[in-house]
Amino acid sequence: MHVAIIGAAGMVGRKLTERLVREGRLNGKDIETFTLIDVFQPESPAGFKGKVDARAADLSGPGEAEKLVSTRPDVIFHLAAIVSGEAELDFDKGYRINLDGTRYLFDAIRIANGQDGYKPRVVFTSSIAVFGAPLPYPIPDDFHTTPLTSYGTQKAISELLLSDYTRRGFFEGIGIRLPTICIRPGKPNAAASGFFSNILREPLVGLEAVLPVPETIRHWHASPRSAVGFLLHGATIDTNKVGPRRNLSMPGLSATVGEQIEALRKIAGEKAVSLIRREPNEMIMRMCEGWAPGFEATRARELGFTAETNFEEIIKVHIEDELGGLLK
Amino acid sequence: MHVAIIGAAGMVGRKLTERLVREGRLNGKDIETFTLIDVFQPESPAGFKGKVDARAADLSGPGEAEKLVSTRPDVIFHLAAIVSGEAELDFDKGYRINLDGTRYLFDAIRIANGQDGYKPRVVFTSSIAVFGAPLPYPIPDDFHTTPLTSYGTQKAISELLLSDYTRRGFFEGIGIRLPTICIRPGKPNAAASGFFSNILREPLVGLEAVLPVPETIRHWHASPRSAVGFLLHGATIDTNKVGPRRNLSMPGLSATVGEQIEALRKIAGEKAVSLIRREPNEMIMRMCEGWAPGFEATRARELGFTAETNFEEIIKVHIEDELGGLLK
Repeated sequence: MHVAIIGAAGMVGRKLTERLVREGRLNGKDIETFTLIDVFQPESPAGFKGKVDARAADLSGPGEAEKLVSTRPDVIFHLAAIVSGEAELDFDKGYRINLDGTRYLFDAIRIANGQDGYKPRVVFTSSIAVFGAPLPYPIPDDFHTTPLTSYGTQKAISELLLSDYTRRGFFEGIGIRLPTICIRPGKPNAAASGFFSNILREPLVGLEAVLPVPETIRHWHASPRSAVGFLLHGATIDTNKVGPRRNLSMPGLSATVGEQIEALRKIAGEKAVSLIRREPNEMIMRMCEGWAPGFEATRARELGFTAETNFEEIIKVHIEDELGGLLK
Repeated sequence: MHVAIIGAAGMVGRKLTERLVREGRLNGKDIETFTLIDVFQPESPAGFKGKVDARAADLSGPGEAEKLVSTRPDVIFHLAAIVSGEAELDFDKGYRINLDGTRYLFDAIRIANGQDGYKPRVVFTSSIAVFGAPLPYPIPDDFHTTPLTSYGTQKAISELLLSDYTRRGFFEGIGIRLPTICIRPGKPNAAASGFFSNILREPLVGLEAVLPVPETIRHWHASPRSAVGFLLHGATIDTNKVGPRRNLSMPGLSATVGEQIEALRKIAGEKAVSLIRREPNEMIMRMCEGWAPGFEATRARELGFTAETNFEEIIKVHIEDELGGLLK
């Protein structure tokens, strides 16, 4: 089993690699080879005995997709993307990386398929950004994709390509629409949605965090561990059960900011909650109103994708995976 | 007013040109210039006194989109496409013409917009092929686009680009999802859906036609005259009322084949109906089951798009526009 991960240096890419190394197997087969690609040099996974090709490469660069495909990975996880804010600021770069890069990959596989019948599983991370306001709650599985960002547009287009290339028999694609990942590990960042994680992650280690929106804001969350679980399930699921509609809104937890804070109170007490500083931000509030409040995700659940069912679980996952299981 | 029509030699393109020449004006302004482009040399419109540049060109060829945009048309109708069957047979050609050609046009406009603020109205013909079975009846406006052909995929992707380029302020786009055009003038062709027109058009002039499906098959129709009306309304509508969701399922008439035949009987009598020869075709029947039975089209109707409301009207439009108003 040869596994390729494009976007391996990102948060989800690193966690996916770690999990695959720990399990050593995918779909009942031993993993013998990893190809790890990212625009930043990915780390070689610790403790893996097999072959590793970890390298910095830009999939949208000439020949890069062909080079990857020439090694005939059995499973390709395509996680690489310019994030939403950058794709909005740099129109050309967003389309080049998020659309052209994806299409180059799909076309390189298509050509290899024509040469020798190569037909890998392709697991693609899409996003709830393919949906744009006004949005119902919960959003049904058959709701239209009308993105309000270039990033969401690029993801929605990639989804369509994935379905068509799969229907034509070039590869076995699965598109995974990830919820917002919470609690995102690391430092607070500039992303407008960062506060969903900040208000939990920072107080859990005794640090202050800023809440820019009212507690009534409702959003759609899943832990990093669930995100990795979605990708692994997407890599192993019987695609005959999925049929031609290959892009799935993943299950998640719909919760208000108030519910997030209540969960923090139960797990870490009043002292942690008191570290959340209210600092209303009009711009972030307006952006929030356009974000997805929650999904039915009926198809994905029926197909065996699972996520957390309450916010205490999400916080416990963070304490186990990021804080060594200990709360200070 | 400078009007450009890409795909001007096609059936809808020719009818649109004729109508614009007859009216002489668009959006309250005199039409001074036509640019008519198609892969086949378009005819210069009879009776037009202004400037005409009618030429054979392939929008997906190098420099062609830039050449068109350099003349700064005020309104661009983009009707050009490889049809469904051909896009399915020739994967590369379908993506090159239907996706890349469209993207080259949009990007040429984007670059011109950056140069001098050029911001034309772009009216794009999409298709109900962006929807794929299983489909509800009627299909609501917010139903997802899960095409089951490469043609439908290319149209759905072009729709997403149109919305994003419009949102970014590069042009004012409107995507028009045309119903199946009925009665399609001309000779019977090889298209699987051809019978919807054949069973009316041929008997109206005393010729036999083949019906390959049961009379219970329900489908979604509008006349060529309505199609031209949609495009003109799309070219003049106040886009502030449309908002960011720029791709609209047009109104139409949902009718069974049996209802079509009843309308023929009322207008042309039993003798015409007797010219329909039943010749069941399993392959066409299976294809039919995946086609859209009908749409709510609530948004389009509220925005002032109109179509026929019964099949007798559709037949009368054909008699007026194609048979000189006379039934033999």
